[in-house]
Amino acid sequence: MAPTFSFRVLHTDGAARCGEMTTSHGVVQTPAFMPVGTRGAVKGVTPRDLREVGAEIILGNTYHLWLRPGDGLIARLGGLHRFTGWDGPILTDSGGFQAFSLGEKRAITEDGIRFRSHLDGSEHLLTPEGATEIQARLGPDIAMVLDECLAQPAPDSAVKESTERSARWARRCRDRFLALSGRGPGSCSEVAITNPGQAQFGIVQGGTVPELRTLSAERTLAIGFEAYAIGGLSVGERADTMYSVVGHTAPQLPADRPRYLMGVGTPLDIVEAVSRGIDLFDCVMPTRNARNGQLFTSEGRLTIKNARFADDQGPPDPSCACYTCRTHSRAYLRHLFVSGEIGAAVLNTIHNLRFYLDTMARVRHAIVFGTLETLRQSLQAMFSRP
Amino acid sequence: MAPTFSFRVLHTDGAARCGEMTTSHGVVQTPAFMPVGTRGAVKGVTPRDLREVGAEIILGNTYHLWLRPGDGLIARLGGLHRFTGWDGPILTDSGGFQAFSLGEKRAITEDGIRFRSHLDGSEHLLTPEGATEIQARLGPDIAMVLDECLAQPAPDSAVKESTERSARWARRCRDRFLALSGRGPGSCSEVAITNPGQAQFGIVQGGTVPELRTLSAERTLAIGFEAYAIGGLSVGERADTMYSVVGHTAPQLPADRPRYLMGVGTPLDIVEAVSRGIDLFDCVMPTRNARNGQLFTSEGRLTIKNARFADDQGPPDPSCACYTCRTHSRAYLRHLFVSGEIGAAVLNTIHNLRFYLDTMARVRHAIVFGTLETLRQSLQAMFSRP
Repeated sequence: MAPTFSFRVLHTDGAARCGEMTTSHGVVQTPAFMPVGTRGAVKGVTPRDLREVGAEIILGNTYHLWLRPGDGLIARLGGLHRFTGWDGPILTDSGGFQAFSLGEKRAITEDGIRFRSHLDGSEHLLTPEGATEIQARLGPDIAMVLDECLAQPAPDSAVKESTERSARWARRCRDRFLALSGRGPGSCSEVAITNPGQAQFGIVQGGTVPELRTLSAERTLAIGFEAYAIGGLSVGERADTMYSVVGHTAPQLPADRPRYLMGVGTPLDIVEAVSRGIDLFDCVMPTRNARNGQLFTSEGRLTIKNARFADDQGPPDPSCACYTCRTHSRAYLRHLFVSGEIGAAVLNTIHNLRFYLDTMARVRHAIVFGTLETLRQSLQAMFSRP
Repeated sequence: MAPTFSFRVLHTDGAARCGEMTTSHGVVQTPAFMPVGTRGAVKGVTPRDLREVGAEIILGNTYHLWLRPGDGLIARLGGLHRFTGWDGPILTDSGGFQAFSLGEKRAITEDGIRFRSHLDGSEHLLTPEGATEIQARLGPDIAMVLDECLAQPAPDSAVKESTERSARWARRCRDRFLALSGRGPGSCSEVAITNPGQAQFGIVQGGTVPELRTLSAERTLAIGFEAYAIGGLSVGERADTMYSVVGHTAPQLPADRPRYLMGVGTPLDIVEAVSRGIDLFDCVMPTRNARNGQLFTSEGRLTIKNARFADDQGPPDPSCACYTCRTHSRAYLRHLFVSGEIGAAVLNTIHNLRFYLDTMARVRHAIVFGTLETLRQSLQAMFSRP
């Protein structure tokens, strides 16, 4: 592993693990949830708010930061940590998922992903080497390889082809990463490296085909990364399909490295994945839903604009100790939301993030005490998908 | 005065006064600036943020709160303090200025102001008695009388007529206020009173005509209020005209009561008015300009979206100790603003409010040390209007 990256498992409950991931900006207790700070800010909250709700690591999006304000600018300003004011661990994705999501405006070749910027229509090519260099300049503690995200459902042949390409891209990413860190051939003197302790994670693709997941895991492990992620899930497939793929893939990843399930999910999805051996999560759900007026609570989901909350003096979640729940009533939050006040987004986001991060703490405690199945059942009762 | 309302002057420097205003929700050091919380929230900041930037009293708008969520609902929930989570002093305006500002959608008669709601076009009549009852339900520590705001410039005859009407309305407001508090004739059992310690301020109108200001002051003082405000300024007149009207009017108001200059203004306007004997201010400028990307700093105004800040690693204001200046660079704030991030409004608002409230602290210290003129000159150099 890179010198400043390490992981150790402290407790297990079945396949679930409770551990500590050490990065160049501090320790993360796992299983951990990473709030999403797309453009260098978790929307609506400050770094101080993030600390207070219990965040230990956040995620940034390479695609967005590359296009604006630019990885070169962020490198000149000392990297993402200094730029954003968040001094804890940061993980960035590779930009591939966002570029892929541009649909008509992108084309995938062996070189990489050619696309037009959503900001100004300018044309860009995101290559495995480029994604690695951009992340070297941004300076997160954990960088991700560029992978191909395939629209599902797709024929097995297309999934196989895509999985093979992702493996080739992963090799190119790793080669560039090793060159950048002086551990492999190639000159990279033109790339400003803002975080010498950066780790790089590989990504296992393979859609919902078990054999292809196994193939992708073998290929990715053969390259060798500090740790491994499972990508290409939570893209519209059924929940039980996702759980099944996770249950198939997680055990194939090294037990002594953290396992990251990308873009997942609901509180129930998270505990289901933890019980299958996953350690890291990210999802826009708590922050995006907060801005849309949906609160996650110990009593399930709550749509704050509902008229029945107009004169509800109770806190959003009676079991929650966040600033919002300590200070404000459902009636007030409804008023702010209905009035379109900025404060609605701020206060709802503080609560939803606290709920997610409290849930992760409960997950860790449950693993220590061997009661994860009980917790899973209670989250299932509250957060089953319709 | 109402039992829980009092004021005492501690120091003077010429006409300027440094004092303490005691309300039913605590003490306010004067001269004081009130951040504007139009719809029950100071846009972009929490009650905790308000405390941290040094706010001691905030303002709410009766017009907005009356229409949504409604004064009846707020009364049922215990009044504005409980509803908003701000437990310090609150002042509400009467709703007159907002109703007046609806332009084509309103008509003024002796009864009051008839208007159509900006929310749904529904027709409403705001009377002096109604404005007083709405504020009794809302429960601020300080309520304002309903006055007529006249568009300027206007012929002296129109100003005189309007001033006379405002005086008649003030009488009706005071009668209703005394009845509501059991100190005058009339039954008000149907009105829920959420703050028995509420004080009521009269408002001196009279446009820019000294004789009419004097007339209005006499009429308003004859009715008798806990304290007095100067209204109808900062509506487009020249700065020196405003200063002149304040200089003419303030000395006619009782020296043992706080004097409130409504809707003012720039840091320079404030110190100019303080030097003429004003104690209280409110203005949307720090909060609105923050959302538009304009920062008030010790070096003058700063437009954060300017390209020259793109890689400026310095804090927004090197002399400021607010959370924003302690945590973030101009480059980051520019990125957030250009990207349309919610955090831009939040962080800019925290800074601008802190700058205004720090300025008020400097004003108070200058009065104590007899150096207000020096402070006025330095603010004039930085914040003269173009």
